[in-house]
Amino acid sequence: MTGGRRSVEDHARHVATLLSPLLIRGTEPVPLLEALGRVLAEDVVAPIDLPTFRNSQMDGYAVDTASLTAVPATLPVRAVLAAGDGVVEHVPGTATKIMTGAPLPTGADAVVPVEDTAVPAEDTAVPAEDTAVPAEGRRHRVTVQTLPEPGAYVRERGSDIRGGRTLLPAGAVVAARHVAALAAVGLTHVSVRTRPRVAVISTGSELVPGGSVLAPGKIHDSNGPALAASAAANGALVISVDRSGDDAEVFAAKLAHAASVAEVVFTSGGVSKGDFEVVKDVLGPRGAEFVSVAMQPGGPQGTALVDSVPVLTFPGNPVSALVSFEVFARAVLRAAAGLPAVEPETRPLSTRLSSVPGKRQFLRGRRDGGAVVAIPGAGSHLIAAMATADVLLDIPADTTDLETGELVKVLPL
Amino acid sequence: MTGGRRSVEDHARHVATLLSPLLIRGTEPVPLLEALGRVLAEDVVAPIDLPTFRNSQMDGYAVDTASLTAVPATLPVRAVLAAGDGVVEHVPGTATKIMTGAPLPTGADAVVPVEDTAVPAEDTAVPAEDTAVPAEGRRHRVTVQTLPEPGAYVRERGSDIRGGRTLLPAGAVVAARHVAALAAVGLTHVSVRTRPRVAVISTGSELVPGGSVLAPGKIHDSNGPALAASAAANGALVISVDRSGDDAEVFAAKLAHAASVAEVVFTSGGVSKGDFEVVKDVLGPRGAEFVSVAMQPGGPQGTALVDSVPVLTFPGNPVSALVSFEVFARAVLRAAAGLPAVEPETRPLSTRLSSVPGKRQFLRGRRDGGAVVAIPGAGSHLIAAMATADVLLDIPADTTDLETGELVKVLPL
Repeated sequence: MTGGRRSVEDHARHVATLLSPLLIRGTEPVPLLEALGRVLAEDVVAPIDLPTFRNSQMDGYAVDTASLTAVPATLPVRAVLAAGDGVVEHVPGTATKIMTGAPLPTGADAVVPVEDTAVPAEDTAVPAEDTAVPAEGRRHRVTVQTLPEPGAYVRERGSDIRGGRTLLPAGAVVAARHVAALAAVGLTHVSVRTRPRVAVISTGSELVPGGSVLAPGKIHDSNGPALAASAAANGALVISVDRSGDDAEVFAAKLAHAASVAEVVFTSGGVSKGDFEVVKDVLGPRGAEFVSVAMQPGGPQGTALVDSVPVLTFPGNPVSALVSFEVFARAVLRAAAGLPAVEPETRPLSTRLSSVPGKRQFLRGRRDGGAVVAIPGAGSHLIAAMATADVLLDIPADTTDLETGELVKVLPL
Repeated sequence: MTGGRRSVEDHARHVATLLSPLLIRGTEPVPLLEALGRVLAEDVVAPIDLPTFRNSQMDGYAVDTASLTAVPATLPVRAVLAAGDGVVEHVPGTATKIMTGAPLPTGADAVVPVEDTAVPAEDTAVPAEDTAVPAEGRRHRVTVQTLPEPGAYVRERGSDIRGGRTLLPAGAVVAARHVAALAAVGLTHVSVRTRPRVAVISTGSELVPGGSVLAPGKIHDSNGPALAASAAANGALVISVDRSGDDAEVFAAKLAHAASVAEVVFTSGGVSKGDFEVVKDVLGPRGAEFVSVAMQPGGPQGTALVDSVPVLTFPGNPVSALVSFEVFARAVLRAAAGLPAVEPETRPLSTRLSSVPGKRQFLRGRRDGGAVVAIPGAGSHLIAAMATADVLLDIPADTTDLETGELVKVLPL
């Protein structure tokens, strides 16, 4: 069936409903280093305490504050502990030389930093480096010059996070600092949301692939790569990028294949009012809805279900196809992928602007400091010009003239 | 040699100089769909005009305005041209039914949109769909109801871009709209900057890989994955992620391997003042410079050249290593990769804040609406806490107390 003129909001809602099954996603485990930019599928619970054991925050001497009541105090040094060593027993009244990260001897309750100690004169002849581990019974001594508080320079077990607590919440977009935390608790993989699987089909007998010489009347397909890149840049996994001429059977077969591998199919072209509209011809009889949306570019839009897989049919002009993706598909794909929405901005125009009345215009624009400037040329074939844009200017239907400094709504590309 | 206390700015300058060879980069061709997020190595010149041929912007009728002097005018329809058809000769005084994107007949100079035409009553019995291409000599006719301007609804060859002109500038970070333009001119590959090749080595006999059970005193290596992810997130290609105990020969061998495959090596650990500092022990005699930078965390820093490859030696505490990367390595890596710098922000504090005097503090913080809040806990082992941060608060050395609402410098993570 073919509907009448529809508002951008109404069509966006319609598309969001059609694509809502994509929001229910499976999970997949990925190695930590492949998790960057992916979205955690579930809360990650710390499997162990961090720190996993009580350890020293400084290079210094582990002591027990109960037997250290006045300073300076010269104590026998019973051992030297490096990070990675096991736990030893503390003997009250002695000190253990301890490196950062080494486990605190059982019974010690504070660390005196090296800079708050001195080596007694009679011991200095023996270099500190000779105090190999463990050095039980050595006659080295240390003079403690400041009185430590109980717990000084001690990292308590579980003081960063306790095992069983939530380390990272579901929905976090994995960054390096998350990888650090995941690695710290010993995880090698993490469960992330699967990416929405997208297939793209460009239609039109004028289309030839890149790298080929153009026969008269032919053009290179840009919508296939452009929509694929748009989907990938918004968290989707692009399964196939295909191209079909105006042969209905060929297109139907390619569409069936796309629907068999993807969760959503984007087509471009074949939805206008010309004599050869393969997308309309094939999908119309199968219950597709083709509507004219009150926007420019991107007015001719359609939606269909093919083997229960939603299909969005975008117009074929390259700028129209990209604008269609931005306005109707991007937000849903990002939500499905679990990525944060791209919020519109409000910016003042740095030059005057005229807009065609009667339809909501999505003009190509460029940020200009804190302002925004429209890029000349409204033609929906101006794809080279669009490459210089970084925003779309969202100009209401009833607006025709905007002065320099007037605020406009801007969608970041 | 070992230097004295150095300012953050001075050390950052020193590192930038040491790493400056990374700024001179080679180029590599990548397929369009793998170019997303990569940086163009050189200007891309359009190899062809866009549009490549003069074509119709509308579904309508191609006419010559010279022979169309008054309306309504009923003209014989000589042919129907679809997108993808070749160029035909226009016969003055006739019309050619033409679809969007089809080449304008030679000699025609305007398109009258379908909606500005009518089919004469006596012709309507024959459905328009029967006018197969080409239909020379058919007796169909069309009535043109509006007088077109010369050039109306005609897309002139080269009106988007002329062959030989710059389509995209060197340095552009490839987005979907760039892929669209590259595909439109028929390119299948594009030349991008090579990514800086990075190797990472964590040191310390306490480190074991993720997935293993922790013996007493051992911890999982988080710096390796964290620094690798940090490098990858900033445009680098991580070549190797390795781990070394405190054995000098083993570390030296791993370092030599890293230097043979990478352009820059990041190590963590082994640079403090403990008795077992493998990085200092191995690199010190080879001309490394170890300095104390007036910052917290991340004070102990070092730089070296191993087989002419720059090595940055970061401290081993997980937060210190990540902060070191952010403060000293990130900007240089991004510049080498061709990515834009991450600009610091200025935000008001949403709570009061105390800072330790004497050293510049890089506190973990979180954006809180337009403001920022510090995350409690300054310990450089608090890696789970750091995972909840999204900024570093850059607090000057002489600042001890900041009130709610005071502005602080913030580095986005």
